[in-house]
This record gives sequence, C-alpha cells and structure tokens, in this order.
Amino acid sequence: MAESATMSSSSPNQLFLGSFIHSVALGQLQYLHNTAICVNSSGKIVAVKQDCDRDTAEQTLLPQLGWALDSVTITTAQDGQFFFPGFIDTHVHAPQYPNVGIFGKSTLLDWLNTYTFPMESSMACLSKARRVYSQCIRKSLSHGTTTASYFATIHVPATNLLADLCLSMGQRAFVGRVCMDQLAPDHYLDESPEQSVSRTREVINHIQSVDPEYALITPIITPRFAPSCSGQTMTALGELQKETALPVQTHISENNNEINLVKQQFPGIETYTDVYDQHGLLTDKTILAHAIHLSESEADLISQRQSKVAHCPCSNSSITSGEARVRWLLEKGISVGLGTDMSGGYSPSILEAARLASLVSNHLAMPGVKWPENATDEERNKVKLSVEEVLHLATRGGAEVVGLQDRIGGFDVGKEWDAQLIKLNAVPEAEDGVGSEYGGNVDVFGWETWEERIAKWLYNGDDRNTSRVWVKGRLVHEKK
Amino acid sequence: MAESATMSSSSPNQLFLGSFIHSVALGQLQYLHNTAICVNSSGKIVAVKQDCDRDTAEQTLLPQLGWALDSVTITTAQDGQFFFPGFIDTHVHAPQYPNVGIFGKSTLLDWLNTYTFPMESSMACLSKARRVYSQCIRKSLSHGTTTASYFATIHVPATNLLADLCLSMGQRAFVGRVCMDQLAPDHYLDESPEQSVSRTREVINHIQSVDPEYALITPIITPRFAPSCSGQTMTALGELQKETALPVQTHISENNNEINLVKQQFPGIETYTDVYDQHGLLTDKTILAHAIHLSESEADLISQRQSKVAHCPCSNSSITSGEARVRWLLEKGISVGLGTDMSGGYSPSILEAARLASLVSNHLAMPGVKWPENATDEERNKVKLSVEEVLHLATRGGAEVVGLQDRIGGFDVGKEWDAQLIKLNAVPEAEDGVGSEYGGNVDVFGWETWEERIAKWLYNGDDRNTSRVWVKGRLVHEKK
Repeated sequence: MAESATMSSSSPNQLFLGSFIHSVALGQLQYLHNTAICVNSSGKIVAVKQDCDRDTAEQTLLPQLGWALDSVTITTAQDGQFFFPGFIDTHVHAPQYPNVGIFGKSTLLDWLNTYTFPMESSMACLSKARRVYSQCIRKSLSHGTTTASYFATIHVPATNLLADLCLSMGQRAFVGRVCMDQLAPDHYLDESPEQSVSRTREVINHIQSVDPEYALITPIITPRFAPSCSGQTMTALGELQKETALPVQTHISENNNEINLVKQQFPGIETYTDVYDQHGLLTDKTILAHAIHLSESEADLISQRQSKVAHCPCSNSSITSGEARVRWLLEKGISVGLGTDMSGGYSPSILEAARLASLVSNHLAMPGVKWPENATDEERNKVKLSVEEVLHLATRGGAEVVGLQDRIGGFDVGKEWDAQLIKLNAVPEAEDGVGSEYGGNVDVFGWETWEERIAKWLYNGDDRNTSRVWVKGRLVHEKK
Repeated sequence: MAESATMSSSSPNQLFLGSFIHSVALGQLQYLHNTAICVNSSGKIVAVKQDCDRDTAEQTLLPQLGWALDSVTITTAQDGQFFFPGFIDTHVHAPQYPNVGIFGKSTLLDWLNTYTFPMESSMACLSKARRVYSQCIRKSLSHGTTTASYFATIHVPATNLLADLCLSMGQRAFVGRVCMDQLAPDHYLDESPEQSVSRTREVINHIQSVDPEYALITPIITPRFAPSCSGQTMTALGELQKETALPVQTHISENNNEINLVKQQFPGIETYTDVYDQHGLLTDKTILAHAIHLSESEADLISQRQSKVAHCPCSNSSITSGEARVRWLLEKGISVGLGTDMSGGYSPSILEAARLASLVSNHLAMPGVKWPENATDEERNKVKLSVEEVLHLATRGGAEVVGLQDRIGGFDVGKEWDAQLIKLNAVPEAEDGVGSEYGGNVDVFGWETWEERIAKWLYNGDDRNTSRVWVKGRLVHEKK
C-alpha cells in the first residue's frame, strides 16, 4: 500500500508553515495565517507562532527551541491550502465496514439480524478480520480521521488484531471487545457475565502489552447496548470500569422499538438512561451513541453524570432512527462529538458526518407539526448547526467525548500533532490558464473568503482534499 | 482540459460489451450481464443482445447489422464494471455554480438576496460566465450527468453562451433564459413582460441557429417563479409556450414564506398551483421544481395537467425548505425526476441527489408527531424510497420529466446512447494481493451480490467511479 511507504515510526522535530484553521469554541473557527507550528519528536506541539514566515521561523523560532535547521522536517501549506485538526470518529464498528451502504429499508432491530450479526460473527476468521480491519483503518485515515472509537466483535483474537493494526498503521484508537449475552444468535454471544468480563480483560491485557501507556491505543469497555446485555453482565462491566477507570462505550435511545425492548426487559427501571445508571455504566468516561429519543430527565441525568454523546447523523437518517436534538444536548452542557457509525452510517468520513449533522439539524428546524403553529423563524433557526459548529463537533467536540481534550482536537501548545493538510482546487482564470487541480469537488474561483472556502470544503470536500494526515507527529497517510 | 482531448464530434459505429444495469420500471432494476449493445453513428441503440460475448457479437451481431469489424469501436466493461444510463439533472442553476456550499443558515428568500442575485447578475460579464459555465458543465459531466435542465440568468449573451458550451462539450441540455420583472434588484430585472418575451425569443432563435433540430440543446421557457413575475409576464410567457410548444421550467411551493408571498401577490387566486395554471404555465411540458408544501388539490391539478416535478432533496435539506412527499406525488401519477438545484443544493452529483432522496424519504418515515400515534411501521415504511426507486428517478424518471422518455433514460433499442461506465474498487484478498483501485469509496470485497454492489455505489459512489461518459454516442468525459 502506498501509505505504508510514507510512514516512519519515529519522527524528527518538525516545522509546519502556512495557514492553520481550528475550532477554539463551539461556533468559533480561528484562522491562523502565515503561522509556524513546531512539533517535537514525541509529536507534541511546542510552539505556535503567528506572523511567522519560513525565514523568521528558521532565524528565530528554531534557535529558541535549540533545533538545528538540518534536523527539522519542514512542511508548508501553499497558498490556499491549510492545516486542520484530525477528525475524531467517536463511534464506529470496524467489522461492519464491508456492509457500508447495505441496509435496504431496515431499521435497527431487523438491520442487526439481517446484515450486522452475520458479518460481525464472521470475524472469527482472523484472515478475514485482517482484510476488513486493514481496509477500514486505511479508509478512515484517508478521510483525515486521526482518532476512532471502535466497536470490534466478541472475538478476542480479532479484537486484539484490530488494536495491533491501529497501532501499526498509526491511528489513535479506542478498541472495544463487544460484550453481549442475549439478542444475537447463540453462536455470537458471551456465555456468561464472567465471560464478558474475562474476555474484556484479555483484550485490556493485550493492549497493555503492546502500548503500555495507552499512548495511541486505549481499551474501552463495550457493552453493546442494554437489549443485548443481561443486568448481570452490565453490572459486572460497571464494576470492571470502576476497577480500571477505563472508558465505556455503548448505544442509547436510537430507535423506538429498541426503547420498548429495554422497557420490557427492565420493567422496574423507569428509563433507558436509568438502566445504564443503575448498572454503573453512566460514568464521566461513557460514550453514548445516538441519544435521539431521550426525555428531558434522561438528558439531565446524562449531563449530571457527565457522560458524552456520539451523534451519528448518517446512521440515524439511513436506518430511519430519528433526528437527534444536538442543540438541546449542548445546551444541557453535554459534550457531543460525531460518529460515522459504519455501517448503520454508510460513509467512512467524519466530514460527511459533519455535513449531515448540519442537514439533520435543518430537518429539525423545518416548519411542520413538530413545531407549534406560532413558532417563529428565529426559534426554529436556533436549532440549526452552523458550518463552524459541526466542524467543532468533528474535532474539539470529539476530543471531549473520547476524554482526550487535553491531548487532541486543536492546534494548542501542549497538544499532540493530529492533523490533516487540506488542498482545494483552484479553477483556472481562463480556459487556457493554469489552476491547481487536486481532484474532488471543491472548486475555488479565487474571490471566496476563507469562511466561504471552509463552507465549500464542508459541503463538497472528500478524501481527495485530504492530502496528508499525521497522528502524534507521524505521517500516517499521504494521498496517492 | 483532459476531457476535450478525448472528445470527437462524430462517432463511428460502436459495440459495448459486458454488464448493463438500468431501471425498467419504478423500483425495478434490470441486470443484463454478458450482453452486447450496438450503437450506430448517430448515437442510437440499434441492438441489445443478451448472452452475447465478444466472439458472438463479432461473428453474428455485427454481420447482421452489416458493420465491418474494423469500422466498429469496441468498449468492454470488465468483470465487476457496468454501464448505467446517464443521469438526468432536471433542475440546476448554472450561474450559481460558484456558490455551491455557501448558504449559511439562510432560507429561500434571504438566500436569494444574499447569495444568489449578486452572483447571477455578475454573469453580465461574458468572460466570467464562460469560466463559470465551463466549469459547471465539466463538473456535471464528470458526475455522469448526460442531460441537464439549466436555469441561466436574464442575460441573453451569457445564456446563448451556456447553450454553445453545452453543445461543444457535448452535454444534452435544456437552456432557459430566466424571466423576472420583480423581487430582484432593479439592475437584475426585465423591464416589461414584452422584454421577457423578446429576450426569450432571442435565445430560442440562437439555439435554433446552432442546433436546428434540438438534437442536443432545447430552449426552455423559464419564468423564475411566481413571486418574481408579474401576472402579465407569466401570461405572456404562457402564450409563448402555446405558440412554440416549448417546455417550461419554474419553481413551486418550496418554502412557506414564498407561498405566503404568492398569496399576497395574487389574492384572488386560491393556490400557488392555480397561479401557474391561470397564466397558462401548467402544461404537460412544465417542470416544477420542489413541490414540497402542495395541498392535495394542488397535487391533483398538477397530475391532471400532466406537469412534472423536479425533486431536489439536497437543496431542500440545505436551505431548510422541507421534505417533499415523493411517494405521494408518484401515487398521484405525477412524473418525478431529481435535480441538484445547485446552489440551493451543494452537490453537482445526481448520485448524491439520489442518495439524499433516499434519506429525505426516511426522514418522512420517522416516528414523531408527523404521524398519528397509531401509525404502524408498515405504513411509515411505505413512504421510504428504495435504492432501485431513487436510481429510477435519477434516470428514467428524469427522462419523463424533461419529456425525452422516448430518447433517453434506459438501454432500449431506439433510444440514444447516453451512458456511463462505472468501476468499483476491488479490495485485495490479502495485504500483498492485487486488487483494482479506481479511487473513491466503494470497496467491493467480492462476496457482494450485484444488488449490494449497486447499493454500495449509490451510498458511497462519486465521480471517481464514473470512468467514462457518453452522450448520443459521443464520449464526452473520460476520467483522468
């Protein structure tokens, strides 16, 4: 593969020059032009200097750091190009990658039985898992996803393999062995709560052996979702969380039939959110995917517990789950990131997830019976997410959701260099003129403001615009 | 440009071999494998022969047609590749192309004033129009759009240029000079109904002079929409339609504020649809874009008049217009096609429009207050559009909408060869194995059925999968 050729396992000191764009707060992109960023050999940002061209950087910045010029790798974003923080996919199922786009008219519960369980259970075959996981990670990296929170399957060897592949291909990842002891076919279930825990421990031990400080790969406790877990299993996993302080990921309130199933299963517990809470799984390190049909009190409880939400608009629109009220969650102080949720969602791209987060928020704002007759345009418009807001969710928001807000998500001194270099096409001035053509569908005519270029990238950008991708300073993808 | 080099203005007889997939009825894709299609030098399909490999075609089919082998150009879809009918974009604004993705949180009326009228009016400059229109057509062709129904601007020279460019670049097109005498800024308005008509006639005359039989380019009468046209202008354009029998295109019922404006403007007329009807514009050759908020009686009238609908889901979700009820329109016997509606819609791709038509139909099916409490899953699922259905709208449905159902939209003898050759990536069997990599995001592992491959293409395909594009037998785009 072409990517492998460009990867090096240890990095020299690096100097990045040009335009850097990142989200500094919800709805607020900062544009740093003519800027220099220095990244040390551990992949950490040690300097961000504005009004600093190459000469200035070489003459003043590098000497200040004590870096000899000939030991520094220099990467420059040319005119019109820019660096952007790597995307964070807060919810994705690696074993479902081959099924992207294949969901027909199904909704959650029949989708699981028809498409998902058969594919996932086939990861018992390690050579198949290697082929699927390699392609999934490669694809995800090529779209600028520098961190992903993966659901694997119940299989320990394949889950360990996923962790190994992320480590060798250089993607920052949370890797979770899926735990479930009901709902799926017998051959694709844990036999007991003890087995859920012991097999999860096996994966934790493996990851500790290959990445002892969780520098790149972190194990994550993964009860699939309440309908597929007995109370005992959830309790056991909740205890494991308490013991290990590891993060947790699961699904919540995606689909009405699912919610009814949870009600039947736990008749004594008032809400779906309470089910997780009462089993010790609603922690400040818990990532809850979907969170569409929550009641007011459920959202309040999630906020109180400081659990996080992975919003997966592509999935929610594809398998007809519903429209998550992101503005409402944010206003409750809940951290929200974006997830591709492959293969409930068809797209491997968090840029597409951001685009669809915008469209789904528009659907929530549409006039119709969802709104009182006298709702004003202003009230309705308020729920819409702006370009800047969805790009925040894709980066800094996602960093909060996976608990790495101190390490990734923006270009701040002390953070690690998880970044992508973005190139947009410049349309030639005349038929016989010279433009720059990187492929893809973002055409810049030259009169656009930077804000407009970013909007164009959000709505028409794809992996062709993602020219290079770095994780922790290491180049992990370069466009062919 | 690379495309130009591959274009020839006259074609030899051609033989196409391999897999052909097209829609034969709503929801019904036909898969023709190991098939041969012969296209004569006028670009017309003269034979479709199943169970016919290259040898058989050369030994029996070509002799039957009296075609000498050495005079025939042969194009073969290799294993896993397939020919698909060219897409039909039933609603697109060429002068808005530079604005794709730039719409902020606007809705129709402020979007027009903020983004659209300033860009459109700048097409008074012919060199700018040439740059914008060339790029728009090139982009549209690269996405497999072989026919487009274009709104231009009020400017006759730029509109004529758009027609000339479509003709020279080989895209089948309807080209409409926009007529409007109110709502827009003074400098971007017709001065009178007479001027709307006389300037439309100028464009009709120009197109007649360059393509006398409308073999490729057809003029289309284009009152922008009721709010920007006085009654006199609409009446005059209705009379012009009666005189010329040319098609008409306009917008209808896109946005609630727009609908209220029409009510105020025509207090004596009951509905928006009645406004067009009473001014002679609701003909069986009329393309109505959007048609979101129609009443039952309006849809019935449209059906009765046999007017057509251009469904533009990307636009409707982007500028928060609403969710058009496509199933309901189809059940009333109304022909529905897809439109990109650039730049209300951000994407130049009809494949993306098809994808979003599927998602929008899912949004209509979502549980919530739009549905009565006791609505069953079955009732809700009925409004969802399948993979096969949205691909029908993108091709044969679109052909009906633009009135070319006898000439394009499928691979039938007698139709013209408007087609695209689609290639999907084959993921290598092993890390060191050989796959085929055409770029893009459709990864085929090898176990997928053809139906699943088509679903994968619909949801993750882009212009990278569109390897070659033909219009009327002429190669008009070849992927670099």
